[in-house]
Amino acid sequence: MRLSQMLFVTLREDPAEAEIPSHKLLLRAGYMRRVASGVYAYLPLLWRVLNKISDIVRDEMNITGAQECLLPQLQPAELWRESGRWDTYTKAEGIMFSLIDRRQQEVGLGPTHEEVITAIARDMVRSYRQLPLHLYQIQTKFRDEIRPRFGLMRGREFIMKDGYSFHTSESSLKETYQEMYQAYSNILRRCGLEFRAVDADSGAIGGSGSTEFMVLAEAGEDEVLYTEDGKYAANVEKAVSRPVDSVPSTFTKFEKLETPNTPTIESLAKFLKCSPTQIVKNVLYQAVFDNGRVVLVLVSLRGDQDVNDVKLTNELTKLAADYGGAAVISLGVPDEDAQRQWAAKPLPLGYMAPDLGDDYINGGKEVEPKFLRLADRTATDLKNFVTGSNEAGYHVVGGNWGKEFTLPKQVVDVRKAAAGDRALHDPSQTLQTARGIEIGHIFQLGTKYSQALGATFTDENGAELPLVMGCYGVGVSRLAQAAVEQSYDKNGIVWPVAIAPYQAIVVIPNMGDDLQVEAAKAIYKELLSVGVEALLDDRDERAGVKFKDADLIGIPYRIVTGRALGDGKVEVVDRATGIVQEVALAEVVALIKGWIVDELLASR
Amino acid sequence: MRLSQMLFVTLREDPAEAEIPSHKLLLRAGYMRRVASGVYAYLPLLWRVLNKISDIVRDEMNITGAQECLLPQLQPAELWRESGRWDTYTKAEGIMFSLIDRRQQEVGLGPTHEEVITAIARDMVRSYRQLPLHLYQIQTKFRDEIRPRFGLMRGREFIMKDGYSFHTSESSLKETYQEMYQAYSNILRRCGLEFRAVDADSGAIGGSGSTEFMVLAEAGEDEVLYTEDGKYAANVEKAVSRPVDSVPSTFTKFEKLETPNTPTIESLAKFLKCSPTQIVKNVLYQAVFDNGRVVLVLVSLRGDQDVNDVKLTNELTKLAADYGGAAVISLGVPDEDAQRQWAAKPLPLGYMAPDLGDDYINGGKEVEPKFLRLADRTATDLKNFVTGSNEAGYHVVGGNWGKEFTLPKQVVDVRKAAAGDRALHDPSQTLQTARGIEIGHIFQLGTKYSQALGATFTDENGAELPLVMGCYGVGVSRLAQAAVEQSYDKNGIVWPVAIAPYQAIVVIPNMGDDLQVEAAKAIYKELLSVGVEALLDDRDERAGVKFKDADLIGIPYRIVTGRALGDGKVEVVDRATGIVQEVALAEVVALIKGWIVDELLASR
Repeated sequence: MRLSQMLFVTLREDPAEAEIPSHKLLLRAGYMRRVASGVYAYLPLLWRVLNKISDIVRDEMNITGAQECLLPQLQPAELWRESGRWDTYTKAEGIMFSLIDRRQQEVGLGPTHEEVITAIARDMVRSYRQLPLHLYQIQTKFRDEIRPRFGLMRGREFIMKDGYSFHTSESSLKETYQEMYQAYSNILRRCGLEFRAVDADSGAIGGSGSTEFMVLAEAGEDEVLYTEDGKYAANVEKAVSRPVDSVPSTFTKFEKLETPNTPTIESLAKFLKCSPTQIVKNVLYQAVFDNGRVVLVLVSLRGDQDVNDVKLTNELTKLAADYGGAAVISLGVPDEDAQRQWAAKPLPLGYMAPDLGDDYINGGKEVEPKFLRLADRTATDLKNFVTGSNEAGYHVVGGNWGKEFTLPKQVVDVRKAAAGDRALHDPSQTLQTARGIEIGHIFQLGTKYSQALGATFTDENGAELPLVMGCYGVGVSRLAQAAVEQSYDKNGIVWPVAIAPYQAIVVIPNMGDDLQVEAAKAIYKELLSVGVEALLDDRDERAGVKFKDADLIGIPYRIVTGRALGDGKVEVVDRATGIVQEVALAEVVALIKGWIVDELLASR
Repeated sequence: MRLSQMLFVTLREDPAEAEIPSHKLLLRAGYMRRVASGVYAYLPLLWRVLNKISDIVRDEMNITGAQECLLPQLQPAELWRESGRWDTYTKAEGIMFSLIDRRQQEVGLGPTHEEVITAIARDMVRSYRQLPLHLYQIQTKFRDEIRPRFGLMRGREFIMKDGYSFHTSESSLKETYQEMYQAYSNILRRCGLEFRAVDADSGAIGGSGSTEFMVLAEAGEDEVLYTEDGKYAANVEKAVSRPVDSVPSTFTKFEKLETPNTPTIESLAKFLKCSPTQIVKNVLYQAVFDNGRVVLVLVSLRGDQDVNDVKLTNELTKLAADYGGAAVISLGVPDEDAQRQWAAKPLPLGYMAPDLGDDYINGGKEVEPKFLRLADRTATDLKNFVTGSNEAGYHVVGGNWGKEFTLPKQVVDVRKAAAGDRALHDPSQTLQTARGIEIGHIFQLGTKYSQALGATFTDENGAELPLVMGCYGVGVSRLAQAAVEQSYDKNGIVWPVAIAPYQAIVVIPNMGDDLQVEAAKAIYKELLSVGVEALLDDRDERAGVKFKDADLIGIPYRIVTGRALGDGKVEVVDRATGIVQEVALAEVVALIKGWIVDELLASR
């Protein structure tokens, strides 16, 4: 493509709307334009990048026998009511855009397609002989994000590959899951990205096992914990570990002490000159279940530990049936109104004991909201511990479970794993931390959706069983931006060769010099003829502007028909390393072609 | 692909939801499944067809220098308010789905992208040096159809290619328009379709010239009028022609006659023993403008002619400013309530004169609704004509304009052209009729959107001018079904080779016969190795079922490893002609490959 004929507009200044480098660069380099909050037009350069990513994804999916299709974006509410997700997605979390059509029917805009694909499988799959089956699509999806940001990282309209597999058994599912693990690793490697596959929480999608594929980058929204031996890596939301040992307590006598102005663990430890590991911290939450029921949850854990909200939500969801619900739809600090409604007197926040006591909670009467106590394992091990007294300005020391305090019935793992913890598989390994951008997520769904929608098959013995399902997603547009976030410098984007919009750019420094123009055109044509995707910068601009633009848009190889032309040579610049070489005119095309082939083979 | 591993389910019975052959066949052959009214899942076979069509479209667009991009489906209401189309599209016609997001912003789901692309051009195009520019996309679009039907023909979610060009002048626009005319003709020819390019009405998109590309098929929703000499073709909505001559009237004396039970032209002509061409027919409409204003419109035309609603809407839109509006948003028969509100006494429907008279319309007072008279040219030529008397059961004969009747100020062309009319360019040519499916539509938009949104450029002399625009659309998913509607037989679909999901199918009649299985697998592999897109029917089914399915899904060439295998031969069946040949094993792949190449070259 000739730049003079292309929609090619670069900006000198960082746009105000952008916060992270990749977002700024994609806007400045003319890859995209914002149309509404979290909604972007993908301009020709970006569209080429997205297609290259899609083609790699498609290739890796097809190799496994998965079949491409395209499912509707408009999804009838009744399907989501069958799975029980309509209210959660449109109201509670509000993540799904919904509308009323001219026939007064409720319609959602697909953020994901478990319901639709399960309904199709219910309709079309009858027998074990049709299984396993794996369908996938590459499609624009929608999420009404609370806070759209970082450009393509968290948009309201974005492109995803999502695939769904159907099986007769868990073991068949696990086989495909393993194939997908490999396929996703291949995709990221072929795109030229540094990444890590990590254990993950399944979230609202549900199911048992799940793995996330994280592209490593400092601006990543996710934290990954891993061990150097390569045997463990997990999203911090899901990570498990062994905390450092606690310091044995020296408070052998139980007593209540005045501890003024010590509402935080830090201030308390300082005041008592003790270790935070000797303290039982008690944190109050307000959980709302999907049936609207509100429950007050008091979590006790060791003072140096923090609660992992995702783990806590999962534990509460396991208990949801006790409260007539199926899932937790929100978890947070009890709001002041709620505190007043629940408690007979102001709650002793910062000084709470492992139990709140009858005089706080509705005078001990059996009323709503319910009150639930949970203990993290880190708290249950402690002896002679320090903890709250339920009276502001006072703590107790030398406390013990089974003596002064009743251990909560529910003992769970809800602590946040953190860098510095020891690995469970090998205590000599310490957890390391890295930031990542979640690009792929694969799930073993099991029968959650097939049971809800009644999607069954008949097995060899004539028995009717629910289909066993897996689902697998890659954020295609997010991957494009993650690649930039992982690979840029002060001059602009540095695309991996495999997903660069063009592989080479031929720059004519002086359009008034016929020799330069003719040489450039000849090289450009020859590049195209040997299958190199090339740009020709034939704009009527100064050489400096052209070099800056070429760096900004990040084309891997630049060929300049400049001063060296007199010696029958052109300048070749490697965008990634900045290394400049002078190459004979007759050799330059073969050289560039060779570099590209080598790069593409190396990432396969 | 091996059928045993594919999502492949065919139906024996026509699904109840389908009305036309192509819709029935695509459902029966497992190409798609309905998910909601007008909303379909495109299953793997259909998805391949759609990709082949898209690739042909893409190829023809890229040849002209158009650049592919992807614009958002979520479109902010404010952009559509700038063009003045938000209310028309979401309320009056209600064709655009709209929703309120979590920030209480109004958002539309794109049925078309003039607003978005014009906003991007406003942002990025500054100078004449950036022009001309042509951007296109292939994308899922949405329309909240009043009556979704015929499968992919009139869906609520469908795939389109839409392109938008920007120019410094009308002449530059006309050049690109001409290139698009050629590109669209190439696309349809390459897809293997019989089609006709016809003059068309520009409808709600606006602008001056427009051409529709019609795929000819009996079930087409559109009527095309054309001349045998190939010099004229138009959508019936737009077509102009010369009607047959009228018979000179013999009613030389003006008088009022009792004509009982003659509310129709047919009954009146029979009663008076005259020709319908001697009658002035007067038809009453109720037009609603975009400002909500209602106008009563009385159209006079020759008795044998009918009113073309599209032409009438266009004429009324030209007069909209007189009523403080910009466009007509609905046109219909005055409803009974409205009639009562307007008329002082019941309207003499069937017996109306060319003017309704003060005693009918609000006693002649200047009140709402306004009353407007229009005469079609066919009425103004008549002398001594028969017409209504404004009294039920009576007509007048021997009437003349300028004598008993005042000619309306507005004389217009609002008649329906019809088969049998004479062509304007050559009266010896008679208009012929054909049914067609609108697949493409190209428009010269001019400056309608650039002026509304303030999208300008600076010309050579430094003057700031509005961008001149064109827009060009192809219905990709509709084209797929139109191809079926044009090409099927009693056994199923007959795909053109260029867009068939697979080009050949190798059928194993008896899976228990190792010889058959091995021969088929060898041919299948060889076909793939020479680049033929092939299916292998290795299902555990009877031969009859396999042959029926192969015909139903419409794969162009079938190879059967059956009885002739003993003589070293296989059976080759051409789906389109049904011709069966026995071909030597060693020759079959080269033969099939040759046929495919010939077919693809022939349509280029």
